[in-house]
Amino acid sequence: MLNKVDKIINDFLFDLENDRILNLYKEISSGKKLRAKLILKIAGDTEDACFLAAIVEMIQIASLLHDDVIDDSDTRRGRSSINAIFGNKIAIMLGDILYSKAFYELNSLPNEVSKIISNSVTKLSIGELLDVELSNKFNPDKDKYFDMIYKKTASLIEASSYAAAYIGKKDTHKFALYGKNLGLAFQIIDDILDITMDSKTLGKPALSDFKEGKTTLPYIILYEALNEEEKKKLVSFFKKMLNTEEKEWILYKMKEYNVIKKSLSIVEEFAKSALLSIKEYKNNDLEKIITDMVKREY
Amino acid sequence: MLNKVDKIINDFLFDLENDRILNLYKEISSGKKLRAKLILKIAGDTEDACFLAAIVEMIQIASLLHDDVIDDSDTRRGRSSINAIFGNKIAIMLGDILYSKAFYELNSLPNEVSKIISNSVTKLSIGELLDVELSNKFNPDKDKYFDMIYKKTASLIEASSYAAAYIGKKDTHKFALYGKNLGLAFQIIDDILDITMDSKTLGKPALSDFKEGKTTLPYIILYEALNEEEKKKLVSFFKKMLNTEEKEWILYKMKEYNVIKKSLSIVEEFAKSALLSIKEYKNNDLEKIITDMVKREY
Repeated sequence: MLNKVDKIINDFLFDLENDRILNLYKEISSGKKLRAKLILKIAGDTEDACFLAAIVEMIQIASLLHDDVIDDSDTRRGRSSINAIFGNKIAIMLGDILYSKAFYELNSLPNEVSKIISNSVTKLSIGELLDVELSNKFNPDKDKYFDMIYKKTASLIEASSYAAAYIGKKDTHKFALYGKNLGLAFQIIDDILDITMDSKTLGKPALSDFKEGKTTLPYIILYEALNEEEKKKLVSFFKKMLNTEEKEWILYKMKEYNVIKKSLSIVEEFAKSALLSIKEYKNNDLEKIITDMVKREY
Repeated sequence: MLNKVDKIINDFLFDLENDRILNLYKEISSGKKLRAKLILKIAGDTEDACFLAAIVEMIQIASLLHDDVIDDSDTRRGRSSINAIFGNKIAIMLGDILYSKAFYELNSLPNEVSKIISNSVTKLSIGELLDVELSNKFNPDKDKYFDMIYKKTASLIEASSYAAAYIGKKDTHKFALYGKNLGLAFQIIDDILDITMDSKTLGKPALSDFKEGKTTLPYIILYEALNEEEKKKLVSFFKKMLNTEEKEWILYKMKEYNVIKKSLSIVEEFAKSALLSIKEYKNNDLEKIITDMVKREY
C-alpha cells in the first residue's frame, strides 16, 4: 500500500505542471514513511487513508527540507540533502511548494481531519523555533525539552493517528494518545542514538547533537546527577568542538550515572502508555511498531 | 476595518502562546494591505470578510519573509527585513508558522474559499521558483514573464477576489478576472518603477531588477526593438554591476524605443480588462484602486 501512497504523491506533483519540481523531488531520499504506515495500519487500506498518508508524507518531507536549511545539514538519511546539492533557496521554495500543495489537498478530506493536520503543522513549525531558541544556551529544563519534542516531532504523528482513526471510524482520542506517546518515544530514541551509536567515519559516537547546541534528554539527566563542579564542566562543553578526552568524559559520566538506562526507561514509559491506550484493539501491527522501535540498537 | 483585520491577525498570533513570535511579528513593517482592502471592498465589511482578509495578509507576509531570504533582500518597505535583522533561519521559521496558522484558520471558512486560497499559495510558491529559474539567463520570452508574474503576484490577488466575491455572494468569475488583471498590472508597474524611479541614495534609477537577473517586461520590449548588435550589448549587461555609462545607455535606448510608454500601455490594457469585468457593479472603490495604481508616478 505504500506504493499507492507514492503514486498519489507523484500525481500531486504532476498536477503542478513543472518538470523542475518533479526532478528535484526525485533527489529527495525517501524515508521509512513511519507516518504513512501508521495511518494505513490505523485506518485500514482505504482510498481516503492512502490520500491522507500521501498528504502527511508530503508535509513531513517539506518540513525536513526546511529543517535541513535551518540546521545547516548536508546529509539526510545517508544521502546529500537538497540544500547541500541545490542550495538553501531551492530547498526553501520546494518546501513551500510541497507544504501548500499538501494543504490544498487536505481540503478534499473531512474538515475535522484538515483542522487537526494543519494545526499540527503550526505546532511543528513552532517546535522548530523552540529547538533553535533552546540551543542558544545549555538547557537543564526537562519540561522545555519535552514541550519542544512534543511540538517538533510528536504533534504530526499524534495528528496523523487522530486523523487516521477519524477516517477509520475508531476512537480518535485513544489513537491520538498512542501517536503522541509513540512520537515522544521516537524522538528520545533518536536523541539517545546520537550518543550510543558509533559514527561511520570515526567509529565512535559523534555526540553531534550537543555540539549543535541540542541539550537532549540524556544530557539533562546527566546534568541532574553531576556535582556542582562537574555540572560546570558539562556546561562548558556545550556547543563546543570536543576532543576525544572530553567526549570520553561525557560518555564515562553517562555510564557512571546510568544515564542511557534512565533515558531508555522514560522511552519505555511512553511506549507503555502508547500500547495501553490502544490495548482494546489488539492491533498487532501497531503494537509491533512500538516494540520494534524500542528494540533499536543502542 | 483594516484595524479589525489587524486585531484578528493579533488574535491568531496570540493563540500560538509564544512571546517570541509576537515580538518577531512586531518587527515586520506592515504594508499597504492591498489584498485585505480588496477583500473588504468586494465582500463588504462582514465578519467573514475580515477573517478572510486577516488570513490572506498572513499568507502574504509569510511569502514575503521567504522571498526576502530567497532574494537576499536586506530591506522591505524601507525597513530592515526580518532576515537582515534576525537571520535567514528565523525568517524561514516565522514564515512557516504564519503560513501554517493561516492554512489552519482557512478551515473555518467555506471549503470553496479554502481551496481557492490554498491553491493560489501553491501557484505563488511555483511562481517564486520560476522567478529564480528565469534569472539564470536573459529571458526574451514575454509568455514566460507573464506566466511567472501571474503565479508569483497575480494568483493570490485573483484568489482573494474570487473568495471575497464568494463570501459576498457576488459573481466569483468576474471578480477573479478583476483580481487577476489587477495583479498583473500591479506587478508590471512595480517592474517599471525599478527603471523610472530615482533611488534615494543615488538620485538615479537603480535598475536593480536587471542586476539581480530579472528580465522584466521593459527589458523584453527593449530587446525586441534593438538591432542585433545592441541586443548583444543588452544581454552582456545582464546580471552585471553596471557603471553610470552602461546604465545610461539602457535608459537612453528605452527612451529611444518608447519602452516605458509601451509597457504602460500594456498596464492600461490589464487595467481596462479589470474595470470591464466588474463594470456592472459600479463599485467606485474598486475602480479607484485600479485608477490610483495606474496613476503612480513614473
